Amino acid sequence: MTRLFADRMNSVHRSFVREILKVTEDPEIISFAGGLPNPRYFPVQEVARAAEKVLSQCGEASLQYSTTEGYLPLREMIAKRYAKKGIKVSASEILITNGSQQAIDLLGKAFLNKGDGVILERPSYLAAIQSFGLFEPRFRSIPLQKDGVDLQILEKTLSEGENKLFYSVPNFQNPTGITYSQDKLRAVAEKLSESSTVFIEDNPYGDLRFMGEDGPSMRAYMGESAVLLGSFSKIVAPGIRLGWICACEEIMEKLVIAKQASDLHSNYLCQRILDQYFMDNDIEQHIAKIRRAYKDQRDYMVQTMEEVFPEDVGFTRPEGGMFLWATLPESMSSIHLFDRAIKEKVAFVPGQAFYADGGGSNTMRLNFSNSDKERIFEGITRLGKAIKEEAK
Amino acid sequence: MTRLFADRMNSVHRSFVREILKVTEDPEIISFAGGLPNPRYFPVQEVARAAEKVLSQCGEASLQYSTTEGYLPLREMIAKRYAKKGIKVSASEILITNGSQQAIDLLGKAFLNKGDGVILERPSYLAAIQSFGLFEPRFRSIPLQKDGVDLQILEKTLSEGENKLFYSVPNFQNPTGITYSQDKLRAVAEKLSESSTVFIEDNPYGDLRFMGEDGPSMRAYMGESAVLLGSFSKIVAPGIRLGWICACEEIMEKLVIAKQASDLHSNYLCQRILDQYFMDNDIEQHIAKIRRAYKDQRDYMVQTMEEVFPEDVGFTRPEGGMFLWATLPESMSSIHLFDRAIKEKVAFVPGQAFYADGGGSNTMRLNFSNSDKERIFEGITRLGKAIKEEAK
Repeated sequence: MTRLFADRMNSVHRSFVREILKVTEDPEIISFAGGLPNPRYFPVQEVARAAEKVLSQCGEASLQYSTTEGYLPLREMIAKRYAKKGIKVSASEILITNGSQQAIDLLGKAFLNKGDGVILERPSYLAAIQSFGLFEPRFRSIPLQKDGVDLQILEKTLSEGENKLFYSVPNFQNPTGITYSQDKLRAVAEKLSESSTVFIEDNPYGDLRFMGEDGPSMRAYMGESAVLLGSFSKIVAPGIRLGWICACEEIMEKLVIAKQASDLHSNYLCQRILDQYFMDNDIEQHIAKIRRAYKDQRDYMVQTMEEVFPEDVGFTRPEGGMFLWATLPESMSSIHLFDRAIKEKVAFVPGQAFYADGGGSNTMRLNFSNSDKERIFEGITRLGKAIKEEAK
Repeated sequence: MTRLFADRMNSVHRSFVREILKVTEDPEIISFAGGLPNPRYFPVQEVARAAEKVLSQCGEASLQYSTTEGYLPLREMIAKRYAKKGIKVSASEILITNGSQQAIDLLGKAFLNKGDGVILERPSYLAAIQSFGLFEPRFRSIPLQKDGVDLQILEKTLSEGENKLFYSVPNFQNPTGITYSQDKLRAVAEKLSESSTVFIEDNPYGDLRFMGEDGPSMRAYMGESAVLLGSFSKIVAPGIRLGWICACEEIMEKLVIAKQASDLHSNYLCQRILDQYFMDNDIEQHIAKIRRAYKDQRDYMVQTMEEVFPEDVGFTRPEGGMFLWATLPESMSSIHLFDRAIKEKVAFVPGQAFYADGGGSNTMRLNFSNSDKERIFEGITRLGKAIKEEAK
């Protein structure tokens, strides 16, 4: 049967991270591998009340088929939240998706022919590499510096050929935790202004800033050439599986066609429940609670790493989000270290999974959102021990 | 910006049917155009109780990320329902999707290179034409007879080139209401046995048989070369947006990769709610209620059509499902008739939307599941008047 499968399936494999997560199902293992928000901060009772209200007040309507674009009041609410951040968009520029992962798939569908150029950060979000990968593009990766991509390499890359998309997670990036400076964003926009490249600003963690100040969206510099992705997974809960794309109407027209063909529309019952949740609760207050908790966890992880990791291990100190990124001595393989760490009952994601074109063998991603302080201390101590042994 | 879009977007347009549905939003219009199940039979209270139970008993877990394959107890329940129908599959052969529409997209992703052959029924399910269409296949359409596709034309078509997929809705087809006979299914399987074509049995209406007896699944004749699609939209409710693919493990491996890249996993909260609903309720009893209601509505539509339509209008008498199909005199255009019908405040879907390769200009699809008897009588009477005027 193998010969029957499409060529695109040759280039993509089961997610390495999701396979790793299976290894870490052993409850004795302290896992910093997953990318899970902390379920302690899911608004379970509030969602339950919203579900009860929706089903008792408009049960039949909330269980019927619905529009491809998504529930209008929910789209209006998203547009209003953008307005508060100084980004002017209308509800007609918002499409509700199944988490922001589906947004990536729909953008691939709408834009990519085989061989088209896609610029990625290096390293980049693994599931974006996979999702775009199915459209068989030509990836061009630009190394990340501490304030965003390397401009010189970006300039060189732009001179090498056309690129339809530039995929970026500018705030508290997955996997590195890096955030673009305002200057860097502006400079990237300037360099792109000579091309027709569409900038995809994937911003699932943007609301989870616990230090520093919010910067502008790329929309401010690139206008309609910037497409914004958002998600409710980190500020409400991933199990409701809802996110969105914000794009100008010309792009939206194509995205709606792609969405129709993909699954007609997103889960309507959960759209209604989420909208009810937003009407009855103060989301900003809820987000503030998550921020405080994640800041504590991040601080504690950074502090423990400073104490127990050898000095030649570097790591980022993210101002928000859920991840930090460690760089081991160049000769050390994080895949080898992973095996040793599993014996010590601690897990992380070896960094090379996030490199579309290889490399990163001495890097690793650590998640701090889904572990309490005790487990962070114990896990990082175990990991420090494994690193020291690996260095021998 | 137009030149930036992928080639595949040229071949697919906004769904004609979904555009028609906008015309029919006028509450005075009696619409037989949509493909909606009757919301009167949505188990609203039972879903509300299931939601309350899931969120109070395992709220955090049901709101977290989950596995790509879907919630295991739900997949096991689907496998058990297949077993009752004599189809032996394991839960590992079931993937939960966002309605069966997403199943079509994932199969396209897994199998289709540009130009690959896809066999369709003529006419065929519009959203399948659209969904496969995005992978730019070569469609080959086989005319439907009253018991399934025309075998002679199938044989000729098979001799003309390879086909990776044969997409079929063998029970109470959308749009025609036609069901394959057992002999026809067996004969199709025999003809396909010399090729490596995978048969996709899309069966969203299979449980809604209200006359005659269930036939076998194509799985009985083609084994692992038959992929089965199912949906909860018609037996529970579309708003929970869940369906499934049943495929052998070799195909499943690819589908899981495609699903990961598409949206990580289907809505987990609704998977848990649906599983709870199935544990606490007798679905077969619920389905029996829907069947009785739809039979009444179908009978009443057929009877009224026999009374008020001119004799030269033919139509199917489906044994289940939600649609019937009318054929006007050859010289009459159902698109012209549509305009006249809208003036009479009644709507249907002109049949040519369901032809991948043109044709069907004198046909139309009528939905009987979403109208009560009074509206069926009034609507069909208005439509009969429009047809008579159009014939003048």
